[in-house]
Amino acid sequence: MNSNMERPYVVGIDIGGTNTVFGIVDARGTIIASNSIKTGSYEKVDDYVDEVCRNLLPLIIANGGVDKIKGIGIGAPNGNYYSGTIEFAPNLPWKGIIPLAAMFEERLSIPTALTNDANAAAIGEMTYGAARGMKDFIMITLGTGVGSGIVINGQMVYGHDGFAGELGHTIIRRDNGRLCGCGRHGCLETYCSATGVARTAREFLTARTDASLLRATPAESITSKDVYDAAVKGDQLAKDIFEYTGTILGEAIADFVAFSSPEAIILFGGLAKSGDYIFNPIQKAIDKNILTIFKGKAKLLMSELKDSDAAVLGASALGWELKDLK
Amino acid sequence: MNSNMERPYVVGIDIGGTNTVFGIVDARGTIIASNSIKTGSYEKVDDYVDEVCRNLLPLIIANGGVDKIKGIGIGAPNGNYYSGTIEFAPNLPWKGIIPLAAMFEERLSIPTALTNDANAAAIGEMTYGAARGMKDFIMITLGTGVGSGIVINGQMVYGHDGFAGELGHTIIRRDNGRLCGCGRHGCLETYCSATGVARTAREFLTARTDASLLRATPAESITSKDVYDAAVKGDQLAKDIFEYTGTILGEAIADFVAFSSPEAIILFGGLAKSGDYIFNPIQKAIDKNILTIFKGKAKLLMSELKDSDAAVLGASALGWELKDLK
Repeated sequence: MNSNMERPYVVGIDIGGTNTVFGIVDARGTIIASNSIKTGSYEKVDDYVDEVCRNLLPLIIANGGVDKIKGIGIGAPNGNYYSGTIEFAPNLPWKGIIPLAAMFEERLSIPTALTNDANAAAIGEMTYGAARGMKDFIMITLGTGVGSGIVINGQMVYGHDGFAGELGHTIIRRDNGRLCGCGRHGCLETYCSATGVARTAREFLTARTDASLLRATPAESITSKDVYDAAVKGDQLAKDIFEYTGTILGEAIADFVAFSSPEAIILFGGLAKSGDYIFNPIQKAIDKNILTIFKGKAKLLMSELKDSDAAVLGASALGWELKDLK
Repeated sequence: MNSNMERPYVVGIDIGGTNTVFGIVDARGTIIASNSIKTGSYEKVDDYVDEVCRNLLPLIIANGGVDKIKGIGIGAPNGNYYSGTIEFAPNLPWKGIIPLAAMFEERLSIPTALTNDANAAAIGEMTYGAARGMKDFIMITLGTGVGSGIVINGQMVYGHDGFAGELGHTIIRRDNGRLCGCGRHGCLETYCSATGVARTAREFLTARTDASLLRATPAESITSKDVYDAAVKGDQLAKDIFEYTGTILGEAIADFVAFSSPEAIILFGGLAKSGDYIFNPIQKAIDKNILTIFKGKAKLLMSELKDSDAAVLGASALGWELKDLK
């Protein structure tokens, strides 16, 4: 963590398909000011960056000015840490390769780094959350998709091209696997994301005939939240959906552990908050599938960052690692 | 590489189930002296270490004495880098946890480090071989088993407990997978090791009725070398065995790339020398299974270390990283 008293803050910018949230964060991980704009409203990336700056600058000035900011961290889909660019992000309005870090650096004269959202979440967890003090852990984000951020020897794993850590796209079912948005079949993400859970719900409701609270909702509009709510009310089919989802995730995690033997696996995202319904089957599947030498070693943990803050905190944590501009 | 002219050599010790080979190595990766003893002849580990030292010391003295040695590196099955111990190695005569690095350090007063054989191979490749200058690569050793050594950000991946990099024990076939020596089913090692190839040969010979040169050999004694020899002579069944093996290995590699996005995958071991018979199907399966953003990026390479030297070179490379004893 930063001990530079002259620059006590960092800025975190989280770019999502819908909203861009940004905030000023102190060394303890408190967001002392924040705001947001709609990402999709800016067809030209220049207009978008201008608008973020127009809204961010007053917050910075109110907290002592640009000189108090150690750095800006950006979390963005398809973000490349090495180049500071967003590359061919399907859910953002700007196509091709966008040099976003450089664009902010130019406008604000604050050093800026960028990475993908799951990596940002991992750095945030290491800086402010459940992974404080850990040198080897894997963060798995269970949202619309399944993302991951891997830390080894205390460093983010970016790989030789900046895109390492796509564990949501490892193949967990090679035969008759579900079609993934990436064009392949059987990716972890097709089973263990929120949308994967909804797919499982539809499959189970079609394949089975037993009563379920989920049958009251039109199949196409069932969400993972609906499944959770039904499970809480004791619905067996809903519980079985979590059992199925958790088992697959646990099988995958057992293989991830064989790769980097982490101290912990940290789960983040809406689905991770389904508590024991999802945690128990994950842990059971890990225990059943893991190689003997790793048995009982890697802890399965929940993120300790508040959902609403996590994205900005994660992005901001990148800022502490930056050196002053010359 | 070491630039300390006062300590121009390292010692590499490779401990195998049958032989222990050791040698003195210079900074260019030349083995300037070497010898070996039978590992299995020493029931007590103290006697074994004494005997290695008794044979190693004359080599050291003939090359300028202990003061010329920067460090000793040991490659051993189930070797733990952090503790310098061998832990429950099934194919060695000494049971439990053996503090081997400390035992050598005591006897020879030379700093000593130890890691498992696949990690040693990776460090050797990075120091003297195909991975020189690479910061991110995965070494896969195809021998009796399948081992792996992973390098990320220029550092060996040991994990939080020293046992990371067990890629031979990731599950590649979840349904009806082959029984592995580790007690689980479907491990990569059961398909892509030399013994895995022999198993495939027996399966194919039973399941198929077409003629094959392999039918001249009793099924139980077929080796991966027999399969290679038959393939070279144009035997279709033998070629299909490599196709099958390479496809499975390529599928697995595509997932490994999603983890750490390495610059290269480097294959080592007898099976890797089956040339295009194994390389072509591996490359084809990688291309078919890899996530789009990684397509065409990770190079598939053969080890550049001579088989007979590789184990000692790999182990010795650890020695360059050691600091002088106080």
